Amino acid sequence: MAEAEAGGDDDARCVRLSAERARALLAGVDTLLFDCDGVLWRGETAVPGAPEAVSALRARGKRLGFITNNSSKTRAAYAEKLRRLGFGGPTAPGAGPEVFGTAYCTAVYLRQRLAGAPAPKAYVLGGPALAAELRAAGVASVGVGPEPLQGDGPGDWLDAPLEPDVRAVVVGFDPHFSYMKLTKAVRYLQRPGCLLVGTNMDNRLPLENGRFTAGTGCLVRAVEMAAQRQADIIGKPSRFIFDCVSREYGLDPERTVMVGDRLDTDILLGATCGLKTVLTLTGVSTLGDVRSNQESDCEVKKKMVPDFYVDSIADLLPALQG
Amino acid sequence: MAEAEAGGDDDARCVRLSAERARALLAGVDTLLFDCDGVLWRGETAVPGAPEAVSALRARGKRLGFITNNSSKTRAAYAEKLRRLGFGGPTAPGAGPEVFGTAYCTAVYLRQRLAGAPAPKAYVLGGPALAAELRAAGVASVGVGPEPLQGDGPGDWLDAPLEPDVRAVVVGFDPHFSYMKLTKAVRYLQRPGCLLVGTNMDNRLPLENGRFTAGTGCLVRAVEMAAQRQADIIGKPSRFIFDCVSREYGLDPERTVMVGDRLDTDILLGATCGLKTVLTLTGVSTLGDVRSNQESDCEVKKKMVPDFYVDSIADLLPALQG
Repeated sequence: MAEAEAGGDDDARCVRLSAERARALLAGVDTLLFDCDGVLWRGETAVPGAPEAVSALRARGKRLGFITNNSSKTRAAYAEKLRRLGFGGPTAPGAGPEVFGTAYCTAVYLRQRLAGAPAPKAYVLGGPALAAELRAAGVASVGVGPEPLQGDGPGDWLDAPLEPDVRAVVVGFDPHFSYMKLTKAVRYLQRPGCLLVGTNMDNRLPLENGRFTAGTGCLVRAVEMAAQRQADIIGKPSRFIFDCVSREYGLDPERTVMVGDRLDTDILLGATCGLKTVLTLTGVSTLGDVRSNQESDCEVKKKMVPDFYVDSIADLLPALQG
Repeated sequence: MAEAEAGGDDDARCVRLSAERARALLAGVDTLLFDCDGVLWRGETAVPGAPEAVSALRARGKRLGFITNNSSKTRAAYAEKLRRLGFGGPTAPGAGPEVFGTAYCTAVYLRQRLAGAPAPKAYVLGGPALAAELRAAGVASVGVGPEPLQGDGPGDWLDAPLEPDVRAVVVGFDPHFSYMKLTKAVRYLQRPGCLLVGTNMDNRLPLENGRFTAGTGCLVRAVEMAAQRQADIIGKPSRFIFDCVSREYGLDPERTVMVGDRLDTDILLGATCGLKTVLTLTGVSTLGDVRSNQESDCEVKKKMVPDFYVDSIADLLPALQG
């Protein structure tokens, strides 16, 4: 019996998800939420066996959701990538999109917060996908693309024209981030009631072969520090992204599993929202990181311990076959 | 008697510096260190009476030092500005420069830390003044000026060529700060032993008429977060900048006054280094801020209370006349 094998109450967490335990877990859940990068794929390459595991879950009638902090793709672009790498798509008639990226969820947030504004507009530090999801939600945007320094000094930078109707500054992944954009963001944020929204606080964006580049969190922090205020954060571990899924799916948290490769985003989100949690070792976090959190005195770190772990989500296959 | 008027031991701090108290204070000190912006001038306009007060201190034989977190001017440019706005210059024969800006002090730091390196070179997120002070200290630099995004995606950004001999990343005030620069900084910082130095952590750069733009601290934080390491900070309230002055002047802290307009930089530095401290109300901090720090439970905030305050450094004049 799993609990006995794993020892006492506290130690019962982070148990290897054997085929037997996986069968018991899956019998009690309707929905599985997956992080994407480091779980389903790395860059453009599917994790071996992951497409088969996801397809087997679909065949068993499980509802799937794909939750990603990445703001640089639309829902449609993610759905296309899922299909392209062999993860299929929703089969139920009338099923809506399965993907909850921070570009989409930020748009949901702005639609809620700017409801009633005659022509809601956002200053976007981010890419075309973020602007597209906002537009689909009825929020216009300005700012996408390069914004080089204009003029000879601070006086000129502060005199550059602003748009009249901007009611929010949205900070996402923006490879064209610049000092001029930072300055503009701060100027918009001095307007009464102007919102500051960050898609996520990831410090790094992992790429293939262990490489990484600076993450959106670095840009959000710079804006927060200059504006001297905290951003509303959409992505994991903020529960807003889970609330988006929950509202569209009508979720029962106790019958929902969160599967991810990061303790500080995926597993913390699951713990915060009362979901069952599974760490997969194909991405960022390791069992050493889990151990370190288990031994920590910090309450938040103690929450960053999954119920179960797998070497890869391909390990779910035996429980789904036969 | 000042102590009696001001009440008990704790309350004796932040006493108005009357002419009588100023005479007593000045009788016991050799050196006065002044912050510049908000103390001597605002933008290009001298604080009324400030040049006369500084000249009177020179006439009394006091040694003066001008300490600024601003990294966008060389020592020579600051000396020229002091003269232009009527603050004069050192009169003693053979006296060295009186200005200690973070561009110069960062160069001192790098010369110390990179001593022994055959051809020390830094990647500089900053302006030409920072590069010039580094060059004068024997440290070459790359990176000054615009650095637009190259290539189509993260792979290309990470493949952009790096310089072979860079041993430090220096983050100062850089109006050309960009995501591409952030990415390059992080790549240099992955090299073993590469230093990360921030000129200062000011969140805002105050301009004339209450306007401000984003400060160097915002850029340092972005690099720190992406690199997952802390920068060595040169400017106030870090004591390195005081150590620079102390080494060149041979200071006795007990016979030195720090005069500034910011509690969190100038006054904290003075308290940390055992100097006497005077807050002037011509800049950022107010007596309300002082009160709030006096009432705080936070040990660091309790240190951000000056010994004395003046409405303006022109208030020193009566004690220096006659």
